[in-house]
Amino acid sequence: MDSHLRPLTVLGSSLSKNVLVKVKWNREYRGTLDGYDQHMNLVIKNAEEVIGDKSTGVLPLVVVRGDVVVYISPSEVI
Amino acid sequence: MDSHLRPLTVLGSSLSKNVLVKVKWNREYRGTLDGYDQHMNLVIKNAEEVIGDKSTGVLPLVVVRGDVVVYISPSEVI
Amino acid sequence: MDSHLRPLTVLGSSLSKNVLVKVKWNREYRGTLDGYDQHMNLVIKNAEEVIGDKSTGVLPLVVVRGDVVVYISPSEVI
Amino acid sequence: MDSHLRPLTVLGSSLSKNVLVKVKWNREYRGTLDGYDQHMNLVIKNAEEVIGDKSTGVLPLVVVRGDVVVYISPSEVI
Amino acid sequence: MDSHLRPLTVLGSSLSKNVLVKVKWNREYRGTLDGYDQHMNLVIKNAEEVIGDKSTGVLPLVVVRGDVVVYISPSEVI
Amino acid sequence: MDSHLRPLTVLGSSLSKNVLVKVKWNREYRGTLDGYDQHMNLVIKNAEEVIGDKSTGVLPLVVVRGDVVVYISPSEVI
Amino acid sequence: MDSHLRPLTVLGSSLSKNVLVKVKWNREYRGTLDGYDQHMNLVIKNAEEVIGDKSTGVLPLVVVRGDVVVYISPSEVI
Repeated sequence: MDSHLRPLTVLGSSLSKNVLVKVKWNREYRGTLDGYDQHMNLVIKNAEEVIGDKSTGVLPLVVVRGDVVVYISPSEVI
Repeated sequence: MDSHLRPLTVLGSSLSKNVLVKVKWNREYRGTLDGYDQHMNLVIKNAEEVIGDKSTGVLPLVVVRGDVVVYISPSEVI
Repeated sequence: MDSHLRPLTVLGSSLSKNVLVKVKWNREYRGTLDGYDQHMNLVIKNAEEVIGDKSTGVLPLVVVRGDVVVYISPSEVI
Repeated sequence: MDSHLRPLTVLGSSLSKNVLVKVKWNREYRGTLDGYDQHMNLVIKNAEEVIGDKSTGVLPLVVVRGDVVVYISPSEVI
Repeated sequence: MDSHLRPLTVLGSSLSKNVLVKVKWNREYRGTLDGYDQHMNLVIKNAEEVIGDKSTGVLPLVVVRGDVVVYISPSEVI
Repeated sequence: MDSHLRPLTVLGSSLSKNVLVKVKWNREYRGTLDGYDQHMNLVIKNAEEVIGDKSTGVLPLVVVRGDVVVYISPSEVI
Repeated sequence: MDSHLRPLTVLGSSLSKNVLVKVKWNREYRGTLDGYDQHMNLVIKNAEEVIGDKSTGVLPLVVVRGDVVVYISPSEVI
């Protein structure tokens, strides 16, 4: 009951899975988490970009700087 | 009377308990604290997201970056 | 006359005492200082939250991130 | 399936390739990635600058500070 | 002529003296400098708070976070 | 083909050459790069300052803090 | 031709000389540079404060936090 999940461990368990990444300025990216580092810089594949409520298309591969990230939500509970 | 609670100790004691996490831009997350690290990055399970006064749904699992956190309030006093 | 008070020493002397914590975005918390660390992350018990001029209630326990703190004012001079 | 791409590795694999670099304030740069460092400072050659929706011309060589970068998207998947 | 004053040395020489501390968001504090640290966190006694042009009262003791400080001006030249 | 230019190397190669330095708040400086350090603090000689679209004159010598820099663009490709 | 001026060296050479210090929020200080440190915290004597286009008076001595500095321009070229 006391075992807990380190934030970076959750990212590690989410590799190759679908994630929702919310960033500042009301932007979000939905795609497959393909990598990360200790600064929470993220690599996302097939990232659908949503600004406000509007999809602006899919980026095949994107490196998002950790500094702009608000949260990362994996679509499956670990 | 002089013993005091380190901020990270309070987070440790709040694991598996309900917390209210207020973040910048008038957002909040209510759910079970499932993890944290020394940067106050947080893992929250079943996080109800509230923007302004409006609930926008529940995220099964979310990693919130510490840099955007304003405060964390456990629902039980330790 | 030259002895002076380190900021963290003032926090140490304010433990278990009433403090006013002003944070960014015109928010403040009034309650008992129950802990702190070197980043000025703070633990406050029975924290009355005031936004603008309006009290929004009392949080039994709250960890405020140092990064959002403007000032901490103990109600008693040390 | 568990091998993953470190963010800086993705930048390394994108050298001499076309990238889209989105920065703060709705600016973007499209050109050839010619260098980077661990802060995500970037060197871009023949960088077309777009502000909002408007192209403002091409910079033959530009060093973009990592601190202003939102994301880097290579045009080819690695 | 080449001897110069380190910023922290000026703070050290200003202990127990009156200072004007300008912080972000058009706020200022006038009082006696009672302490500081290397982050320019400041301890001020009998600090008159001025927001815009309006005095909002006196705080008997206040710890101002260095991160919000714009400048510190001692009322006497050292 | 894989040799790439480190951002600071580009600055080193741009010494004594004309650069355009774009900073936050829609300001720019055009002049001769005369120095830099690892924080991208820059020394520029005969820096024409442009705010928005309006030239506001020439500063004979200016030290620009790296923290406010958006990009540096040398006028010659290296 | 390749010798260049480190930003802090320029500050060292500007000691006891007149400087223009531009800070965020359209403020500037003109006075004698009396000290600095590696964070670009500055000590200025007889600093005329200008906000927007309006002089607001002279501060006999002021410690400006480096974090708010945009640029420092010595009135003489070194």
